[in-house]
Amino acid sequence: MKGFKFAGVAAGIKKNSKKDLGLIFCDAPAAAAALFTRNRVTAAPVILGKEKIKQGRVQAVLVNSGNANCFTGEKGIEDARACSRLTAEALGIDSDLVMVSSTGVIGAHLPMDKFETGVPCVVAELSGQAEQFEKGVEDFSEAILTTDTCRKIVRETGFILGKPFTILGMAKGSGMIRPDMATMLAFVCTDVQITSSDLKTALTWANEKSFNRITVDGDTSTNDTLLALANASSGVRIQDGESKIIFQEALDTVCQDLARMVVKDGEGATKLVRISVKGAKTNQDAFKAAEAIAHSNLVKTAIYGEDPNWGRITAAAGRSGAQVAMEKMDLFFDDQALVIQGKWQGIEAEKNTAKIMENKEINITLDLNLGTRSDAFLFCDFSEDYVKINADYRS
Amino acid sequence: MKGFKFAGVAAGIKKNSKKDLGLIFCDAPAAAAALFTRNRVTAAPVILGKEKIKQGRVQAVLVNSGNANCFTGEKGIEDARACSRLTAEALGIDSDLVMVSSTGVIGAHLPMDKFETGVPCVVAELSGQAEQFEKGVEDFSEAILTTDTCRKIVRETGFILGKPFTILGMAKGSGMIRPDMATMLAFVCTDVQITSSDLKTALTWANEKSFNRITVDGDTSTNDTLLALANASSGVRIQDGESKIIFQEALDTVCQDLARMVVKDGEGATKLVRISVKGAKTNQDAFKAAEAIAHSNLVKTAIYGEDPNWGRITAAAGRSGAQVAMEKMDLFFDDQALVIQGKWQGIEAEKNTAKIMENKEINITLDLNLGTRSDAFLFCDFSEDYVKINADYRS
Repeated sequence: MKGFKFAGVAAGIKKNSKKDLGLIFCDAPAAAAALFTRNRVTAAPVILGKEKIKQGRVQAVLVNSGNANCFTGEKGIEDARACSRLTAEALGIDSDLVMVSSTGVIGAHLPMDKFETGVPCVVAELSGQAEQFEKGVEDFSEAILTTDTCRKIVRETGFILGKPFTILGMAKGSGMIRPDMATMLAFVCTDVQITSSDLKTALTWANEKSFNRITVDGDTSTNDTLLALANASSGVRIQDGESKIIFQEALDTVCQDLARMVVKDGEGATKLVRISVKGAKTNQDAFKAAEAIAHSNLVKTAIYGEDPNWGRITAAAGRSGAQVAMEKMDLFFDDQALVIQGKWQGIEAEKNTAKIMENKEINITLDLNLGTRSDAFLFCDFSEDYVKINADYRS
Repeated sequence: MKGFKFAGVAAGIKKNSKKDLGLIFCDAPAAAAALFTRNRVTAAPVILGKEKIKQGRVQAVLVNSGNANCFTGEKGIEDARACSRLTAEALGIDSDLVMVSSTGVIGAHLPMDKFETGVPCVVAELSGQAEQFEKGVEDFSEAILTTDTCRKIVRETGFILGKPFTILGMAKGSGMIRPDMATMLAFVCTDVQITSSDLKTALTWANEKSFNRITVDGDTSTNDTLLALANASSGVRIQDGESKIIFQEALDTVCQDLARMVVKDGEGATKLVRISVKGAKTNQDAFKAAEAIAHSNLVKTAIYGEDPNWGRITAAAGRSGAQVAMEKMDLFFDDQALVIQGKWQGIEAEKNTAKIMENKEINITLDLNLGTRSDAFLFCDFSEDYVKINADYRS
């Protein structure tokens, strides 16, 4: 993918000397679009980013982990501006073209001395040649992680009129995951030629069925950002209807794969679960029921315990606000029916279900049998480790 | 408290041979009012109870633990009816005057053979004389428990025109606690003379500021019931304005104390927390912010870890939908200010807060400084034990 460079270094922002400062650089300004958290408590880089993205062009993105620069007042905004400026100076570009993102602990000021030494280092690290490109992608993807246990990288190639284009997505996220119209940190780079307005539309669609349909713990981050950059280096133009569809499909795949990786790497998670709600009367009902099930701590702990406790699933649907009728509900684990028309299917069905629950990935389908609407959520189970990770997070 | 009798026995409904069948009996039919769960997946005894309570009179209440009789279809309703009938026959009263309540696992049919042998036993156990009254209250309060670690009994005495009256409240509840316009199982008995309609009004008020302001895990039970019985045996009449106020205050106290006990005994809980949100622009905003904080797994695990992670508290308020402004927020733990006008108050303030968090009971106050409205929630922390209890609940 020509024209993009990536790097990641350990700048000492995290206490554990892991990589914590990442950089994306485009040879020339790229068309850019972004979605941000709807949380009203918003990190300084998000406040700044909302302003900067209006111009629709970005050339560099500096991302730090270990500190969210959130709830840091006027000084937080100044610090974020200083990070842009440091990066722009080291790269020799206009600081208006630099976006910054932060993730980590809320409420502490950025250690600016670490940025003063770190930014020149990460700029120097920028991968130039082909053999360094992959290393750059890996280093960047590592530098943006917090409690994540693995890097999250997705690459998708598509063809328009026989010409190939690429979308490369990188994300972080493991806890405080309940995106609300946006996401944790995710960066999508593509070599197509597209206007920033069309990119925003495509990104909004992709987000709606990916990052907006996942949950780890029901908490929405203050720093959620999904940023897309398109640098036109492939020569593929996204303009007419057909090219838009092909690009959208590729972008959907990247966002959905990244979202899936985030949930799979959920704090303390041992299983990945997809809850599909079918047969709802309205789209809203399908969403509400799926969301309530995906958020239920009782459902999540039962899945961790590999207990086919279907009463908790149906009870969560019942309290969701969605229209439901007990005597109509069907419930499946993979293809195994556990409840049909509100009736438990017996001990054999339950034993088969318990067997299915031993798998690492589980598909649950709740058919409300009241209409034709459906929706789905990805979520993870809830183990003692989630509690351990979050009771000790700052110490 | 004349005219009420209580009993509780082990009937074999639970696997562990603990008490699981309780009975309240009034010498004569009492004025009765009840509030039930708003969950649309509703247990059979709740479906039946909603019908029965319409007559406003109840003479006996049979409660079993170990089985919720929920999601049990037509047979579940028949079983609940059979329980009423068995109780009425053993007591020699009309079965229309018998309410039944169930709590425990969802989705299994009641073991009716255990009720056929158990109901005559619990009727035989009914405490008659004064010295058996206390034992009866204790046995009943024990028989209704599931994952609770202790009985929940509250007694309040009031005076109207110099005459004493008593309110006795008993509750169960530890998990699946996020009552929505009702509660877990709670039974309130009083010796005042009051109409069932006035009793319903008083109960609704009391519920709103007690059971509707608590959460353990955010899941609303299918069996939530708050039932009040008034048998007039004290000769105290609740009729005019002043007597209504005195009675309401006593009833509020009983319900708030019971609600507090439920949260304190929350599954795996080690700390009891009160979050007060002040200075909100609207009542709705105050409620939303308090509710979001009380439900946040990240806040709950931080409290378990005794970590003054105020970023999670303010972030939960931010995503709640309430109007908030970062730069206006004040946050206190007991009297210790941790954030003032959006500014962290430094390491000394944080150390003092950490000290306060070692206590078993913690008061958190978030002042939004945007208006004059306030609300409060009681909640508990979130430990590894919650996960353990709920991963293994049915096995």
